[in-house]
Amino acid sequence: MVDVAVVGAGQTKYGNHPSGLKAMWAEAASKAFSSIDGDFKPEMIDEAFIGTIAFGGAQLGNTAALLTEHSGMDGIAVRRVENACASSGFALRDAWMAIKSGQADVVVAGGIEKMNDLTPERKRYWLGVSGDTEWERLAGLTFPGTYALMARRYFHEHDSTHDDLVHVSVKNHHHGSMNPQAHIQKEVSFEKAAGGFMVADPLTLYDCCPTSDGASCVVLAADHVARRMTDTPVWIRGSGAASDRLALHDRPSITQLKATQTASTKAYAMAGLDATQIDLAEVHDCFTIAEVIATEDLGFAPRGAGGQFAREQQGSVNQGNTTINASGGLKSKGHPLGATGTGQVVEVFKQLRHEVGTSRQVRDAETALTHNVGGSGATCAVHVFGRER
Amino acid sequence: MVDVAVVGAGQTKYGNHPSGLKAMWAEAASKAFSSIDGDFKPEMIDEAFIGTIAFGGAQLGNTAALLTEHSGMDGIAVRRVENACASSGFALRDAWMAIKSGQADVVVAGGIEKMNDLTPERKRYWLGVSGDTEWERLAGLTFPGTYALMARRYFHEHDSTHDDLVHVSVKNHHHGSMNPQAHIQKEVSFEKAAGGFMVADPLTLYDCCPTSDGASCVVLAADHVARRMTDTPVWIRGSGAASDRLALHDRPSITQLKATQTASTKAYAMAGLDATQIDLAEVHDCFTIAEVIATEDLGFAPRGAGGQFAREQQGSVNQGNTTINASGGLKSKGHPLGATGTGQVVEVFKQLRHEVGTSRQVRDAETALTHNVGGSGATCAVHVFGRER
Repeated sequence: MVDVAVVGAGQTKYGNHPSGLKAMWAEAASKAFSSIDGDFKPEMIDEAFIGTIAFGGAQLGNTAALLTEHSGMDGIAVRRVENACASSGFALRDAWMAIKSGQADVVVAGGIEKMNDLTPERKRYWLGVSGDTEWERLAGLTFPGTYALMARRYFHEHDSTHDDLVHVSVKNHHHGSMNPQAHIQKEVSFEKAAGGFMVADPLTLYDCCPTSDGASCVVLAADHVARRMTDTPVWIRGSGAASDRLALHDRPSITQLKATQTASTKAYAMAGLDATQIDLAEVHDCFTIAEVIATEDLGFAPRGAGGQFAREQQGSVNQGNTTINASGGLKSKGHPLGATGTGQVVEVFKQLRHEVGTSRQVRDAETALTHNVGGSGATCAVHVFGRER
Repeated sequence: MVDVAVVGAGQTKYGNHPSGLKAMWAEAASKAFSSIDGDFKPEMIDEAFIGTIAFGGAQLGNTAALLTEHSGMDGIAVRRVENACASSGFALRDAWMAIKSGQADVVVAGGIEKMNDLTPERKRYWLGVSGDTEWERLAGLTFPGTYALMARRYFHEHDSTHDDLVHVSVKNHHHGSMNPQAHIQKEVSFEKAAGGFMVADPLTLYDCCPTSDGASCVVLAADHVARRMTDTPVWIRGSGAASDRLALHDRPSITQLKATQTASTKAYAMAGLDATQIDLAEVHDCFTIAEVIATEDLGFAPRGAGGQFAREQQGSVNQGNTTINASGGLKSKGHPLGATGTGQVVEVFKQLRHEVGTSRQVRDAETALTHNVGGSGATCAVHVFGRER
């Protein structure tokens, strides 16, 4: 079976973009293409998988074809993949399978979202539909509220307080302050984050990721062509994906995500690695509590010890065994929904090629993981990467 | 490389459904499952790909996971695939690649749409966004208008008049009158169809497909498990997909679809068959002119002779070499957008197993083709099937 490598990756800065969707996608694609140092022309691309949810409030349609006609991918087989905030994590998986299938040698996976030209009402709507509608959204539960319930229950079950979440926020803002692609590039003090404006008790402003505009694009290639395209491919060593019930009340526990556990177990097994062997992980911290829970679900901390993991700054760059969200994560790098999954890969690509160039670089990074979640855990895609196959 | 078979297929009746989206999907899935005569449990399903566009006007989200949690596919990797009206044609292709990749043995592809609880305005909106927005939709061009332009130009370029389109309508209504799953199960006379209410000159009501509710579901399996699941698998012998510019003005010709030509050329080559060897084809006749053009693009008639093909009733069941739209097609069977592509496979599955049971059965059918188009040709997926591999 063919091995699959990431040979190029690029993204727009995340934030509030004045430019339109097509221009944003073209920028991300163009950056991905120009990151390929060897033999490459866009005509080599066989297929494209593009993740997006609202696509600017559904103002445009046939999204994938619309984007690719403007970015040098004319005429190829393209499709939109939509799984709420895990859209481009699944686009990546499907692109990887397309190469594994032997039907394609070079495949693009990417994502895009434009949130900041929506009214606050439409923004809330498009975020809301990513979760359960019948029991949660229509009863008034927003996403901060959903994760607030999970946080409260987590504090009840385990040795943890809101202070642990503050540590996550401080760390991710610290990492993000060194990332020129991040939406929010500034440090936040413990005191400031601890005393933030309350959004949904116990979550404050500093526990919630921003809603960002952004696009990200990665180029995957089969092993027999990857080596011609770059001397430093980043190999996809494992892929796992899973789903779960949408509504919290339908799950046996709301302090763990079964979809993350299933997806990561599969990805680790395929990669022949366990959590202790991962040098850096980009995890889906839409809210700080999500990072604490992910640290456990992905095996970086034992069950119930995610709070302590955060408190002890074990995820800070080059502090512990595994750096968590060296990019700044969704909290600081930003969260352009459909773009987030492949945006995580952009970070991993740079990190594993040792190209970050600031103290955000994880030293001697050899292995990495991305963790992309849809809704409050209804869908999840996990990928494991390595400098070696 | 593993061969892939359709081992089960089912759908709701197309039409105006009082039931909700989840119930519709569960019905289609349950029918697909119960069509499997051998060894099968839903737990055997590894992945699911589900096509939908509006999903009831985007009232619900994380669509794929929402549907699968209610249909015996709990926890597996699922995603929504969206390519306008070609959504489930691409879901089928991606499901096929998932098995080809060796990562999955049993995969579900399906689609769903609920159009009839939308207001006329929202219906027009969700149909409209499947085409070009900037140059066409926002200028007031609707889909009937788009295809009317193509029809007018076709009559100008070729030996054809509106009467040829009437023949398509009469034929598809005749086929659909024998299909208990069809939205419109009645014959239409030439006179009635010729004198229909004008929608967009030259297209009348009888040139336009209805907007339907419906769900369809097919189960694919790798060769080594397919044989345990059924004695009469239907093999996917070829798959091709392509994209094109969204706006008509961006294409060298508006009387042919380049995406159809590219996709079918690939699918035929993979199958080792040409158009003359196809016994039946389910083609994307969202408007009658689309069937005329598809007959040419797929190679059933020479360029410019699609009108004559229709006029001579060459596509009528058991009349010519290839039966076109034995199910009734989108015109009579109906068009629940995201469900249409895999709905075409439901027909092919029955036809190639010789299970239709009415005079709609194509005699001794050995090979078949499905043709699923998104927008006015911006995306297209073509699949070739056979009783033999």
